[in-house]
Amino acid sequence: MSPQLLTPTPNAYSAILGTGSFRPDVVVTNDDVCQWIDSSDEWIRQRTGIITRHRADANTSVLDMAQGAAQAALEDAGISAAQLDTVIVATVTFPHATPSAAAALADRLGATPAPAYDISAACAGYCYAIAQADALVRSGLAQHVLVVGVEKLSDYIDNTERTISFLLGDGAGAVIVGASPVPGISPSVWGSDGSKWNAISMTHSQLELRDSLLGATELLESAVDEPLEELANPWPTLRQDGQTVFRWAVWEMAKMAREALAEAGVKAEDLAAFIPHQANMRIIDELAKQLKLPDTVLVARDIAENGNTSAASIPMAMDRMRKAHPQLSGKFALQIGFGAGLVFGAQVVLLP
Amino acid sequence: MSPQLLTPTPNAYSAILGTGSFRPDVVVTNDDVCQWIDSSDEWIRQRTGIITRHRADANTSVLDMAQGAAQAALEDAGISAAQLDTVIVATVTFPHATPSAAAALADRLGATPAPAYDISAACAGYCYAIAQADALVRSGLAQHVLVVGVEKLSDYIDNTERTISFLLGDGAGAVIVGASPVPGISPSVWGSDGSKWNAISMTHSQLELRDSLLGATELLESAVDEPLEELANPWPTLRQDGQTVFRWAVWEMAKMAREALAEAGVKAEDLAAFIPHQANMRIIDELAKQLKLPDTVLVARDIAENGNTSAASIPMAMDRMRKAHPQLSGKFALQIGFGAGLVFGAQVVLLP
Ligand SMILES: CC(C)(COP(=O)(O)OP(=O)(O)OC[C@H]1O[C@@H](n2cnc3c(N)ncnc32)[C@H](O)[C@@H]1OP(=O)(O)O)[C@@H](O)C(=O)NCCC(=O)NCCS
Ligand SMILES: CC(C)(COP(=O)(O)OP(=O)(O)OC[C@H]1O[C@@H](n2cnc3c(N)ncnc32)[C@H](O)[C@@H]1OP(=O)(O)O)[C@@H](O)C(=O)NCCC(=O)NCCS
Repeated sequence: MSPQLLTPTPNAYSAILGTGSFRPDVVVTNDDVCQWIDSSDEWIRQRTGIITRHRADANTSVLDMAQGAAQAALEDAGISAAQLDTVIVATVTFPHATPSAAAALADRLGATPAPAYDISAACAGYCYAIAQADALVRSGLAQHVLVVGVEKLSDYIDNTERTISFLLGDGAGAVIVGASPVPGISPSVWGSDGSKWNAISMTHSQLELRDSLLGATELLESAVDEPLEELANPWPTLRQDGQTVFRWAVWEMAKMAREALAEAGVKAEDLAAFIPHQANMRIIDELAKQLKLPDTVLVARDIAENGNTSAASIPMAMDRMRKAHPQLSGKFALQIGFGAGLVFGAQVVLLP
Repeated sequence: MSPQLLTPTPNAYSAILGTGSFRPDVVVTNDDVCQWIDSSDEWIRQRTGIITRHRADANTSVLDMAQGAAQAALEDAGISAAQLDTVIVATVTFPHATPSAAAALADRLGATPAPAYDISAACAGYCYAIAQADALVRSGLAQHVLVVGVEKLSDYIDNTERTISFLLGDGAGAVIVGASPVPGISPSVWGSDGSKWNAISMTHSQLELRDSLLGATELLESAVDEPLEELANPWPTLRQDGQTVFRWAVWEMAKMAREALAEAGVKAEDLAAFIPHQANMRIIDELAKQLKLPDTVLVARDIAENGNTSAASIPMAMDRMRKAHPQLSGKFALQIGFGAGLVFGAQVVLLP
């Protein structure tokens, strides 16, 4: 007779126990941007609400930023790195196919031997990781999960490109998710629409770059004295169909945000804060309007200073908001991330 | 008064409901390999147990292989793509920083709007994804999770490199994880040791390639008639410290496999199959020996034909084994993945 498999003892509820963020030093103004593209400070402010974005210098890596945010979150939650039993890094800008940023981060923090992995879900990466952390904790597979959203987007843009580069900044935000006596994370409303895979993407595949390199090497090696003008496919960078994304973000994300409230059993008036992905101030305003948020709800508008930091934007904005408004502790925030995939994720969370 | 957040209704247990695999066509023999590196068929067989590896041709992408394996797994599980509510792709060889392979795969399968994300956990990617799928199902966040391990490693190797390239093959394996009336997945024993981050890694960072490209462009643009000999940092490819990995795999993974059995409440004699990551036949044999597996336990030795396919190796081997031995249905298999990070994950699973 075979035995029955044992399974972990579930935790009743999960919650965010602490937050932290890391904001890199280099401030890029709209006037800086206008040296690279045909635009204006006025146009950028009006269409996006962005006044500055922060970028990391050459000596500040994805791992450095992740570590800064993670250490702050651990301190805020009052737990040690050794208590972590999962490390999730949401990023699309770690410059190695393998190993993961998370394994290196766990080692830097002193969280080894915690399981550690990276996820690729673009600007929804943080909300996707919260869904996983909630599931890992409630299912009993983990007790303390570190979730980091981190991007050094400045490495993957072409500053002279006009559809997306001027929006983007670098940074890291982190939260600790752990067991909780009261429910702190509502059922995740998350999904994808891969029919719009090209709405935000890289200019070309890494394999096109590779083949281009091979071609260049052959040219160089050939006796022929033909000059190598330029690589057909240089370093891939980000680009987007801004209008497609804008419309999808405004219409579909308003629906998903309402669904997240319904699944949470929470009304707009019960919220203390709304912390959407910081993609565009007009998208933020439009979502707040469609959700009929009362004036009492604080709306994250980190984008004005930070630009769009993809997976990092929500935890960075949450961390700043909590520190500026300590009275938010114990209150509800609606968070919603959305981006390349297209993918989205939303939850109502109890702020620590 | 604030309401209490609602949370999802948990499922008691999760299990693997079906499996599928995709094996690409191009057969690379040891003699082929010996045209690229100084080695011999005999040396490769003796030290690794590999006779051939399968690789995908230029027209067969990561997505094509993932789709083939996923469709087979859906059919085997008897569920439709529309029933999937999470798609997880474990891969380190999808050639785009963003969006994810999973979002495109969900769209190809007809699984939209299922949440879809990629994870980076190298050769432990499949076992890491099983941990997540188990947590998502038991926590009630998902009912049917598609887990795909897929790699086109041939795109990220240098055939003339002697530490790892000759070991590697391409392929995809997939499983469906869903709710189950009996426990089908034991508590995951998973972890990382980032202090050995360099034991298996890329030759250099993508950013070094980028800077090298910028340097080349400047050289080309400069009036100076200096010939561009070669890029200082070309396409990054995989490399490893074989002995470090070998020792770690044999010693540490035997411990972790025993821990997985203990957490599952299962003895070696209760197992019907042992399906370790297909890294090296000597590692497989050594683990089987240290675990004192009785002769009745079937041991996956897919590596002889397929080489090491990283995240794909366990689900590919499981799929083949189940089809060759239908009597395994309802019996226990111990699976253990390990690789770059270093990272590892192990579970006892009930075979469908
Ligand atoms: C990118 C975005 C700001 C562009 O704004 P838009 O109003 O859609 O701009 P359009 O592409 O329709 O172009 C409108 C005009 O502005 C001009 N324009 C476009 N980009 C410009 C720029 N960076 N600076 C100045 N002018 C610009 C266009 O040339 C066009 O001029 P025309 O009317 O003379 O032809 C906007 O689409 C957006 O924010 N989309 C959502 C993007 C997003 O959030 N992505 C990340 C999600 S994670
Ligand atoms: C890669 C691996 C097969 C190399 O075997 P090894 O026995 O450790 O080989 P070493 O590096 O110690 O080298 C031993 C000898 O073989 C030679 N050698 C190394 N690679 C060789 C190759 N590909 N072909 C022929 N000879 C080779 C060395 O030059 C050395 O020769 P010497 O004794 O004359 O100096 C082995 O280390 C291994 O399988 N490690 C685990 C790797 C793995 O599974 N990685 C993936 C995990 S996900």
